[in-house]
Amino acid sequence: MDPIQFAYTFSVRLHDTDAAGRLFFGHLFRHAHDAYEAFMAQLGLPLERLIRDDEILLPLVHAEADYHRPLGQGDRVEVTLAIEEIRTRSFAVAYRFEADDGTLAATAKTIHLQINRDGTPASSLSDAIRDAILPYLREDRPQ
Amino acid sequence: MDPIQFAYTFSVRLHDTDAAGRLFFGHLFRHAHDAYEAFMAQLGLPLERLIRDDEILLPLVHAEADYHRPLGQGDRVEVTLAIEEIRTRSFAVAYRFEADDGTLAATAKTIHLQINRDGTPASSLSDAIRDAILPYLREDRPQ
Amino acid sequence: MDPIQFAYTFSVRLHDTDAAGRLFFGHLFRHAHDAYEAFMAQLGLPLERLIRDDEILLPLVHAEADYHRPLGQGDRVEVTLAIEEIRTRSFAVAYRFEADDGTLAATAKTIHLQINRDGTPASSLSDAIRDAILPYLREDRPQ
Amino acid sequence: MDPIQFAYTFSVRLHDTDAAGRLFFGHLFRHAHDAYEAFMAQLGLPLERLIRDDEILLPLVHAEADYHRPLGQGDRVEVTLAIEEIRTRSFAVAYRFEADDGTLAATAKTIHLQINRDGTPASSLSDAIRDAILPYLREDRPQ
Repeated sequence: MDPIQFAYTFSVRLHDTDAAGRLFFGHLFRHAHDAYEAFMAQLGLPLERLIRDDEILLPLVHAEADYHRPLGQGDRVEVTLAIEEIRTRSFAVAYRFEADDGTLAATAKTIHLQINRDGTPASSLSDAIRDAILPYLREDRPQ
Repeated sequence: MDPIQFAYTFSVRLHDTDAAGRLFFGHLFRHAHDAYEAFMAQLGLPLERLIRDDEILLPLVHAEADYHRPLGQGDRVEVTLAIEEIRTRSFAVAYRFEADDGTLAATAKTIHLQINRDGTPASSLSDAIRDAILPYLREDRPQ
Repeated sequence: MDPIQFAYTFSVRLHDTDAAGRLFFGHLFRHAHDAYEAFMAQLGLPLERLIRDDEILLPLVHAEADYHRPLGQGDRVEVTLAIEEIRTRSFAVAYRFEADDGTLAATAKTIHLQINRDGTPASSLSDAIRDAILPYLREDRPQ
Repeated sequence: MDPIQFAYTFSVRLHDTDAAGRLFFGHLFRHAHDAYEAFMAQLGLPLERLIRDDEILLPLVHAEADYHRPLGQGDRVEVTLAIEEIRTRSFAVAYRFEADDGTLAATAKTIHLQINRDGTPASSLSDAIRDAILPYLREDRPQ
């Protein structure tokens, strides 16, 4: 069965750009996380509930991005999100940012580690998380 | 004839909130401007073209907001935008931010001044701007 | 006795600017609040403690700014902060943003309302707040 | 000869944190770039001049960060910046973020590619850039 992808669309706004006329690189991570929030909400695990209930804590331990072409104000961008890897107590989310004309503008990855309330790593990912994200796991990646 | 309003919707994201658990007040202005950019694009006057062509320059000279109730992560907000006033060389945009339950969360106002390339105030608003925004002028306000 | 002023300095960074090559107006509020945080820390009332202890809550109920001249990347800006008004349960902070050459780039104002934990307005400002900010009150303003 | 390091200090502000009470991961990149801007200014190559003169264009093509411990509002952070690698037409900047108590909070890396005005990669880094950053090159890294 093919893995499912989650799509999220945004427009590059004036405040996203800088004096060089392009998307400021750091703001790509804001949009990646917006896509991740929308993804988690669709899975029935909205971050605001996880944070409020203080039970499943999934802080980022790694983030990276590669920039293939500049994005400018007014550009419409589609983010496709997939799960790249599921480990014992963490998972990796992969993002592709495509411009309107179909060209690849950037890719990004974030790794989320489940921790206990005292900040130590959890013994394992909660079943609720694992079950929810599994259908989005890319099968062509080593696990 | 009733003035037209422009509506724009956004979700409050994690990065919009701060450690007090609410929308950081300054970020409201980012969302107000996002609504303004979407509005100008719908009018056929997308800001990216105005900035690139360097002909019609409309920097903000004033911004203000009143906060009526806190907004939190995951809240869905509808911004309605109207033109509050049109003056010789400037115009004022009014924004209402309503939460999902219909309560008023905030209002904001921005004033945009048309300037020449050398930074001096223009003698008057360009006809393209005036004609485009006029249908959105609230008639109950003194002009 | 002359009121005291609090000074805070920052540089306009690339991410503060937008494709029009100027400080994005909304980011001025971020810098104003940075100055306010540094001010409150100097008063012995750091916001992180107020937020953590959850006893004195001072959300913003109003913010405004006037923009007098553009600021660009690399500009060094001095913010001077004073208390403009102290009311029963709120106070107003005034900010002046001066560029390196001494010209006034912008002014801003924020109003902070003391609330109870349930979100209702407090009966009055706590003495700790009132006593700490009083020396910074501009005496030429009506109270 | 030991390579030189560049140090830059900042405080985590309220707008840097999110509802989970920690520095929002994406904002670390803003602070990394602030350190990089201060570094380039000290080298006599301020980004605002490079962008304005449009001669040496150094867009980011990669960014990454590892988060070792959470940072909260009011934390004072020292960023030490070094050049990790110099290649034909690009260079990598490494950042270490240390909290007040000396613990390592995060590390980051950005890769900057010199491009021509038409967006194609330059044939090589300009001598002005190479000469300026060379003293900061970590010698224990493969080149």
